[in-house]
Amino acid sequence: MVTEKSTSGVSRRNFLQAVGAGSSAGVMFATMGAMGLAPTAAAQPRAESWVPPRGSDFSLTGRSAKKVVVVGAGPAGLATAYELQKAGYRVTVLEARHRPGGRTLTIRGGDSETDLDGVRQTARFADGVYMNAGAGRIAQWMVTLDYIRELGVPYEVFTNANADAYLYNERSGATPGNPVRYRTAKADVFGYTSELLQHAADQGALDQKLTAADKENLRTFLRSWGSLKSDGTYTGGSNRGYEVYPSAWNEHGTPLPGPGTVSEVLASKVGQYFPFEINWEQSMLMFQPKGGMDTTYKYLVRAIGNQNVHFESPVTGVENTSRGVRVTYTPKNGRPRQVEADFAVVAAPAGLMRRWDTNWGPAVDAALGEFSVGSPAGKIGLQYRSRFWEDDHRIFGGITETDMDLAHVWYPSYGYGERKGLVVGYYNTGTNARTYADLAPKQRELRAVEQGVKIHGEKYRTELESSFSIAWHKVPYIEGAWAYPNTSSAGFRLLQEGAGNVYFAGDWMSEVSAWQHGAFWSARYAVQALHQRVMSS
Amino acid sequence: MVTEKSTSGVSRRNFLQAVGAGSSAGVMFATMGAMGLAPTAAAQPRAESWVPPRGSDFSLTGRSAKKVVVVGAGPAGLATAYELQKAGYRVTVLEARHRPGGRTLTIRGGDSETDLDGVRQTARFADGVYMNAGAGRIAQWMVTLDYIRELGVPYEVFTNANADAYLYNERSGATPGNPVRYRTAKADVFGYTSELLQHAADQGALDQKLTAADKENLRTFLRSWGSLKSDGTYTGGSNRGYEVYPSAWNEHGTPLPGPGTVSEVLASKVGQYFPFEINWEQSMLMFQPKGGMDTTYKYLVRAIGNQNVHFESPVTGVENTSRGVRVTYTPKNGRPRQVEADFAVVAAPAGLMRRWDTNWGPAVDAALGEFSVGSPAGKIGLQYRSRFWEDDHRIFGGITETDMDLAHVWYPSYGYGERKGLVVGYYNTGTNARTYADLAPKQRELRAVEQGVKIHGEKYRTELESSFSIAWHKVPYIEGAWAYPNTSSAGFRLLQEGAGNVYFAGDWMSEVSAWQHGAFWSARYAVQALHQRVMSS
Repeated sequence: MVTEKSTSGVSRRNFLQAVGAGSSAGVMFATMGAMGLAPTAAAQPRAESWVPPRGSDFSLTGRSAKKVVVVGAGPAGLATAYELQKAGYRVTVLEARHRPGGRTLTIRGGDSETDLDGVRQTARFADGVYMNAGAGRIAQWMVTLDYIRELGVPYEVFTNANADAYLYNERSGATPGNPVRYRTAKADVFGYTSELLQHAADQGALDQKLTAADKENLRTFLRSWGSLKSDGTYTGGSNRGYEVYPSAWNEHGTPLPGPGTVSEVLASKVGQYFPFEINWEQSMLMFQPKGGMDTTYKYLVRAIGNQNVHFESPVTGVENTSRGVRVTYTPKNGRPRQVEADFAVVAAPAGLMRRWDTNWGPAVDAALGEFSVGSPAGKIGLQYRSRFWEDDHRIFGGITETDMDLAHVWYPSYGYGERKGLVVGYYNTGTNARTYADLAPKQRELRAVEQGVKIHGEKYRTELESSFSIAWHKVPYIEGAWAYPNTSSAGFRLLQEGAGNVYFAGDWMSEVSAWQHGAFWSARYAVQALHQRVMSS
Repeated sequence: MVTEKSTSGVSRRNFLQAVGAGSSAGVMFATMGAMGLAPTAAAQPRAESWVPPRGSDFSLTGRSAKKVVVVGAGPAGLATAYELQKAGYRVTVLEARHRPGGRTLTIRGGDSETDLDGVRQTARFADGVYMNAGAGRIAQWMVTLDYIRELGVPYEVFTNANADAYLYNERSGATPGNPVRYRTAKADVFGYTSELLQHAADQGALDQKLTAADKENLRTFLRSWGSLKSDGTYTGGSNRGYEVYPSAWNEHGTPLPGPGTVSEVLASKVGQYFPFEINWEQSMLMFQPKGGMDTTYKYLVRAIGNQNVHFESPVTGVENTSRGVRVTYTPKNGRPRQVEADFAVVAAPAGLMRRWDTNWGPAVDAALGEFSVGSPAGKIGLQYRSRFWEDDHRIFGGITETDMDLAHVWYPSYGYGERKGLVVGYYNTGTNARTYADLAPKQRELRAVEQGVKIHGEKYRTELESSFSIAWHKVPYIEGAWAYPNTSSAGFRLLQEGAGNVYFAGDWMSEVSAWQHGAFWSARYAVQALHQRVMSS
């Protein structure tokens, strides 16, 4: 068992970050050595820079390649197997479900899922129509994109923000048939807040904080940002959009009604959705693999070798032995089997591991309990026979936001202009997700459509062809959408060290939970720890 | 000659818009009839809704199809020919240049252009690399997208806004190697302006304008929008982005330096670029045809029939005759020829028509002078052997803004992750465009690269393979980038009426100048006017 505790102190870590930023990992490791912090078998890797293990690490040192069993064929598990195998490790991946990807699930026509209540759905989607039932977006800075590019997965823009998507706050007065578009809401909120700030500055209310030069710079910004008139007031303007857009021959466009008063605009609470677009995780540009998010994992399985990835092989036991690890699983229609290896990397939902036969002890079990992937989230895919959101509403991709229990509506970022299309009719979490999860699939559809009609009109009902819904906390072998990990806890440090020859990985062990980026990085750090251990033994 | 003046008064037009909005053109025309405004041969079409002429308009009324000569194979000319031909008109298009598209010019490897000074450039771009030297973007609401979809042109997202693109204001203190990313600039500007507004509201400075409820709604918005701390101050945060992004295992990311003080942020003038993204014409989502903007016009030529579109056939005369129109042109290596037709639609740059032999008289000539497409604009395409803006800077598409004379840098919205790529190294207008236009192509490249290095580092110089630049006011038969039309002028009304059997079209006759949308709508209105004339004769 690895028992040495983490030595990470904030000030020391910050110093190392300052050294490591922009320099090679080698330089940083040298610095760490000078500080008495050079990595040992038990130390956590602290490199910002990822140094993947290489085959030459074995060949040049005369060591024999080790065998690793990876539990879980989601992003963390497959990345673990992929990186280890590239360095010469012999890997076997055991996956409980019938397909790779874990929570990056793509549903296509013919796909079936049976939930923990025994409710079975089969998607009746047309060719080329799919639903990303789990992860749906990749920011350009995320390591996910590196894997996609390394593997050669085709990718395309994911539209996470669209000026023509709608906002519909029913509890703040929005009425059926009258959603407001993002662009209109932004013009009004930015217009009025600019007017207010300009007014305050003009009145001298900010003279304690702003110089005359500051005020002039502020005025220049606000006038343009808020579309303010020369007298400093906001009265609307072209950035709100149009009922009919300007064209030619003196057709200057048909303005939209409004704007309402500053009180009305603030009371509509449309501004609550704007921070999303400037959020560090959510800002455009974003991407998705062409054909569905799980494409990346199909490529990973192919890279690792189909023969090395065993589906429908749920693990029931992971034990440290005197020679390494022993993993017990039950292949489809078979008897329990055991596989022996030097190490195991377990990349399954943390809470589920506590049900296995293990000998890592109660402290690790308790720690795993802290990182349970238990939050509920749900989505429904609504396949329509026409793309009325594009043809009639002129919305090509993006997300409509509501305060109804459907929460978000996603328009597809693929297949623009094709005949059919699929809208994610709800994407919700927490209580809202449980509300839908407790309904039968057809009732979920009816509820989502009833709400969506308020925004999109009757076609949202009449053009519907079929639906498929998922409730993540009811998916066997997953049982939740994500964790909210507290990685500064003692439990986390325990899991980070691993349990004997067992390491743990998963987005729930990352600083970016619920993202493939976090899962991949957790895998890299687990691989790095395992490999350093092997190299120093 | 059509001499009846336009009857458009604002109040009447507004009424018709109110009737027309959301109802069919037929209903509106009936209303117009009841008001004594039913269209006559001489009246301008006033429909928001476009009612294309149909073949049955001829066959059902026993009329014979008319012949129309269209001058210009840009967006307005080709759309005119396309719509007329669909309705049974016989069309001939005469284009002065060697290719269709006009200012929607795409430069690929092997393409050559010779400017008015006789300077010839041939692009040495790799296969699949292209530069949209003119029009580059299409908003989702624009009619351009309708034509693209109708023609079956493949299209993809154009990235007009990217949180990771840079801002570089040298005249406000930015130094080489230290551009700021959009996301950082936004976090700081929105953070401080939110702090200031919250402070003013807390001090009671807005009590004349806001109720207690308004203030509470405002507070909720500002706290989130500005990432304010509980004490109402802005001190940075994750939305600024990171030097190294958070990953896993307690790697919480390496923050960027900053933020500066409110004075520094305001003085950096980064906020001046933010209104662009909420502009009615520029807001995402936007598109581009795959393979280059001129693809649409290749499809249009194919639809019209290659045999009906004559390139390298500059027109030198357009005359009304007793039987229609006579158009004189000079085919390549040939003698001047004349073509007779019932009508002509002239969709060439307005200023150039004044050099032709015409009999439409000095008033029309003077009006054309008002709509000269004379504004200068320039672009350079820089082909790089690696996509370092993606690999090193992690910028996938979008636009970097500067206050240097290169103005804008566009990263490509196609070919993500491929080996080579093309950056638009400058896109500038006015004085800046003239500065570059006055240089030899190699000097333009050197100047653009010298500036770009300040933002992107030395690779911006060392990875460069070749370049191609355009100065629109030096392109033969075009001689400018766009006009700033005053469509409320008497001159405009004259052109709108046409001159005898000659109609005019072009983005310079639209309310959305410099956009394909404006060109297409001007074509539609010209077609509508011509067709109504034919149907009522």
